[in-house]
Amino acid sequence: MTALERLTAELGPHVSVDPRHLAAVRADKSGWVAPGMPLAVVSAASVEQVQATLRIATEFRVPVVTRGAGTGLAGGACGTNGAIVLSVERMNRILSIQPEDELAVVEPGVLNGDLNTALSAHGLWFAPDPASRAFSTVGGNIATNAGGLLCAKYGVTREAVLALTVVLADGSLLETGHRTVKGVTGYDLTALLTGSEGTLGVIVQATVRARAITPGETVTIGATFPDVAQAAAASTLLTAARLRPAVMELIDPVALALIVAHLGPHLSQGVPAGGAFLLVQTDGPASRAEADQAVAVLRAAGGAVRVSTDAESADRLLAVRRAAHPALAAHGDVLIEDVCVPRSRLAEMFERIAEISARTGLPIPTVAHAGDGNLHPNFLIPFDPARGSAAPVVPEQVWAAAGELFRAALELGGTLTGEHGVGVLKRRWLAEELGDTGFDLQRRIKEVFDPLGILNPGTMFEPKARR
Amino acid sequence: MTALERLTAELGPHVSVDPRHLAAVRADKSGWVAPGMPLAVVSAASVEQVQATLRIATEFRVPVVTRGAGTGLAGGACGTNGAIVLSVERMNRILSIQPEDELAVVEPGVLNGDLNTALSAHGLWFAPDPASRAFSTVGGNIATNAGGLLCAKYGVTREAVLALTVVLADGSLLETGHRTVKGVTGYDLTALLTGSEGTLGVIVQATVRARAITPGETVTIGATFPDVAQAAAASTLLTAARLRPAVMELIDPVALALIVAHLGPHLSQGVPAGGAFLLVQTDGPASRAEADQAVAVLRAAGGAVRVSTDAESADRLLAVRRAAHPALAAHGDVLIEDVCVPRSRLAEMFERIAEISARTGLPIPTVAHAGDGNLHPNFLIPFDPARGSAAPVVPEQVWAAAGELFRAALELGGTLTGEHGVGVLKRRWLAEELGDTGFDLQRRIKEVFDPLGILNPGTMFEPKARR
Repeated sequence: MTALERLTAELGPHVSVDPRHLAAVRADKSGWVAPGMPLAVVSAASVEQVQATLRIATEFRVPVVTRGAGTGLAGGACGTNGAIVLSVERMNRILSIQPEDELAVVEPGVLNGDLNTALSAHGLWFAPDPASRAFSTVGGNIATNAGGLLCAKYGVTREAVLALTVVLADGSLLETGHRTVKGVTGYDLTALLTGSEGTLGVIVQATVRARAITPGETVTIGATFPDVAQAAAASTLLTAARLRPAVMELIDPVALALIVAHLGPHLSQGVPAGGAFLLVQTDGPASRAEADQAVAVLRAAGGAVRVSTDAESADRLLAVRRAAHPALAAHGDVLIEDVCVPRSRLAEMFERIAEISARTGLPIPTVAHAGDGNLHPNFLIPFDPARGSAAPVVPEQVWAAAGELFRAALELGGTLTGEHGVGVLKRRWLAEELGDTGFDLQRRIKEVFDPLGILNPGTMFEPKARR
Repeated sequence: MTALERLTAELGPHVSVDPRHLAAVRADKSGWVAPGMPLAVVSAASVEQVQATLRIATEFRVPVVTRGAGTGLAGGACGTNGAIVLSVERMNRILSIQPEDELAVVEPGVLNGDLNTALSAHGLWFAPDPASRAFSTVGGNIATNAGGLLCAKYGVTREAVLALTVVLADGSLLETGHRTVKGVTGYDLTALLTGSEGTLGVIVQATVRARAITPGETVTIGATFPDVAQAAAASTLLTAARLRPAVMELIDPVALALIVAHLGPHLSQGVPAGGAFLLVQTDGPASRAEADQAVAVLRAAGGAVRVSTDAESADRLLAVRRAAHPALAAHGDVLIEDVCVPRSRLAEMFERIAEISARTGLPIPTVAHAGDGNLHPNFLIPFDPARGSAAPVVPEQVWAAAGELFRAALELGGTLTGEHGVGVLKRRWLAEELGDTGFDLQRRIKEVFDPLGILNPGTMFEPKARR
C-alpha cells in the first residue's frame, strides 16, 4: 500500500488529489511557488484526522506541510514536491470565549478577523494584527509569531498565546502552557512552538489571551517630511519622548510616489509625492494629550502635520498606508522583505537601503513599522508575459541585493526577519544570523521533535543533502 | 589532577572552599538546604571565567549550580553535594542603557532594584517586580521567569527579555534573540532559556526591555470583606468589568489575622482582623476614573472601601501586604507555595485550600496576586530548637497537603508554580502537570543543551538513578 492509498483509506473524502487543488497549495502570498507537485491535500476537520495524517506520514516517511489560509510571505507553507499538504482551514471553530479569564480557545483555522468579531461582543480583542488579519488564520499567526502595526504597544503574537495543543510528528498529542496568566512549570514550549513555522508540530488548538478593548478615542496624525532621514529621525524622537503610539508607520519617498500615483490626487489626501510620510495613531484615555505631544515633536522635527479625530478622515489617512502593496503590485510581482533594526538605527537602515538601491540600480520602495524598527523594503519584479500562470522567478540580482539588506540589518544590530518568518526564502541566511552554535542547537531541537525530518522540511533550514 | 586543583590552578582567587562559604550556598530563601557539601564556590567576575568553569566541569563531569543572590523559593540554586557553585553575583555591571531603544544590557548579577534606579534617570523602568526586587538579581529573575505584583498589567519577565548571552555546558558561548522589538529568525531560544532554572546554560549577559515610566498618579484602594469568597468574587468582577489594575492583592482571613496581630492596631491601619483584605492600585492617565469604577464594583460586592491618593497613606496600606511574610515567619519556618489558577477559579481555589486545611488540621494562611490568579498558600513549620543551624525539615504531612494543593490547582485548570519555579521542591509533581509526552520532550531538550547532565542536576527533573 502506498502513502496515498493509506491516506485515502483512512481519511477518504478529506483527501484531494485534484490537480488544480494541488497546484493552488504550492504558492503563498510571497510570490514563491514550490517546484514539483505535492502528493495530496488533506483537509482535516478534527484533531484525530491530523493525528492519522501524521501517523501515516511517519510510517511512509512522507513530508508534511501544514497550511492555513496560505497568506504567508516567506514560502513557509507551500506544498513541496511529494509532500502531504495538511490544511487546517476547516478546523475553524471558536471553541470557547471566557470573558472572565480574558481568553479564548480556538481551532487553528479560525480567521484572526472572525475571532476579533466574536471577542468584540465581550469588550475584548485579540491584539496580534498582521496586515492580513481579515484573511489570515490564528494558527498561521502563531506558527509565524506574526507581528503587525500595533506590536510596539500591544506586543507580538507570542505574548498573546497561553497554551497550545500540538500533534507531533508521530501523531501523538502534546499540550503546552497554561490557561493562567502566569505559569513557570518546565520549559516554555508554548513560546518555542510559536514562530516554529510548522517544523516542530501541527498546532490543533490554541488558548489565546484577549485584551480589554482600549477605551478612549483614537487620534490619527499624518506628517510629511522632505526626506526619509528626517522622518526616521522624527520617529526616533517620539520614542525618546517616552511616547508609545499605537501605530507609527513610515513610508519612504520611493514608495510614497508610487502610492500617490496609484491613488490619484483625491484619494491620496493631498499628501505630496516628493517626501516621506509618517502616520501616527495614539489611543487610550490620554490619546489627545499624547497626540498633542506627538504633534509638537513632529513639527519641531520639520514635519508638516495634519490631525484627524473623526474616524472617516482617519481612515482616509490610513488608506494611504494600506495602498502601499496594491500600488507596488500594479508594477510587477513584489518581493517583500522584512528586516528589523533597533529603533535608533532606523535612519541608518534607510541610508543603507538607498545606497544598495543606487549601486544595484534596483528601486527599493520601503514602508516601515517605525515604532519597532521593522522595515519592509520591496523589490519589484517586472511581469514576464511569457510565464503565464507559472511562478514568478526572482532574479539572482534581486536575491543578491536582498542579501546585502540582510547583512546591513545584522550589522546595525538587527535581524533578517521581523515578522514574516524564515520560510524557504530566507533560510540561506539563517546560519549567518544565528551563528554556528545557535544554528547547531536549533537543528538539534528540531531533531528532538522531528527525528525523521518529515515536518515542513526545507522551511527554516536548508534541506539535508540526500544520501 | 582533581577538578578542584584544576579550578584553583585556572581561577585562583575566585575559588573558595571556606566551609562557611560552602555552607551558606547550600540554602536559598525557601527554607530548603541541600544535603552534603558543595565542592567549591567560584565567584566569577567575567564571561571567560564562567567559560573556564564550565570547561572544567565538563572535563571532570562535575555538576554546576549557578547562583545569583540566592533569593529563590524553590531550592533551584542550592549547592548540592560535590557540585561547583558558580556565583555570578560579582558580574553586576550595567553595560549600557540605550534610552532611544528602550533597552538595557546587563550582567546577570545586577540587582533588579539597582537596574531600576539607573533606568529611572531616563524615565524608564524594568517591569519585572518580584517581591525580592531590592535584593534579587536580574539573572535570577530571568532564570526563574520571575513574576511579581504587576504582571497582570505589565507582563512577566519573559516579556522583558530581548536577548541573552549564555555559556553552554561545554563552555561555548551562545547568543540568542535580538536587540529589536520584533524578530522571528529561528526558534525562540531566548524564551526557552527564560525560566530554565540553570538547567540549560549559564546566563552571562542579558538585553532587557525598559518601559516608559507610567505617567499619572497612582490610586490605592483597600477593601475589606467578611470572607475570602466574597473578596475573590470581587476581584473577578473587577476583571470582568474590563479593568486591569496595576496591583490587585488578596489576603485571606488566616493570613490577615496573623498580619494584624504582628503589626498591632496602629500599623495595621484599622484593617479588621476578622475578614479578607483586597488591595488594588490603578495607575496611568486614567487612574482616578478607573479607581472610581473599581470602588463602585468593590462596594457593590460587599466591600468596606478606603481610597488613598497620597503616597504616604498608600504606603501604609501596602505595608499591610508587605508584612505578610514577616508576620508568618514570626511563628515558624515558612514554606511558601505558589499555585496559579484561571482568575475565574480563584474563589474555588480558596475553597479547596480551606477544605485541605480543615481536613489536615494545618493552618494555610494565603495571599494571592488576584489579578492573575496566582496564590501563595503558606505552611508554618514550628521552630525546632534542637536543630540549631541545620536545615528545617518539612514534615511529610505538609508535603502531602502541598501535593493536594497542586492537584486542586491542576483540576481547576491551573499550574503548580506561577512564578517561583519548579526547583528541587516541586520536581516530584512536574510529570503530573506536563503529562508523559511533554515531560519526555522537555527531558530531551535538556539533553540537547546538557548531554552530560552537569547543569543543575536535580533541579526541575528528578535526578537520574545512578548506574
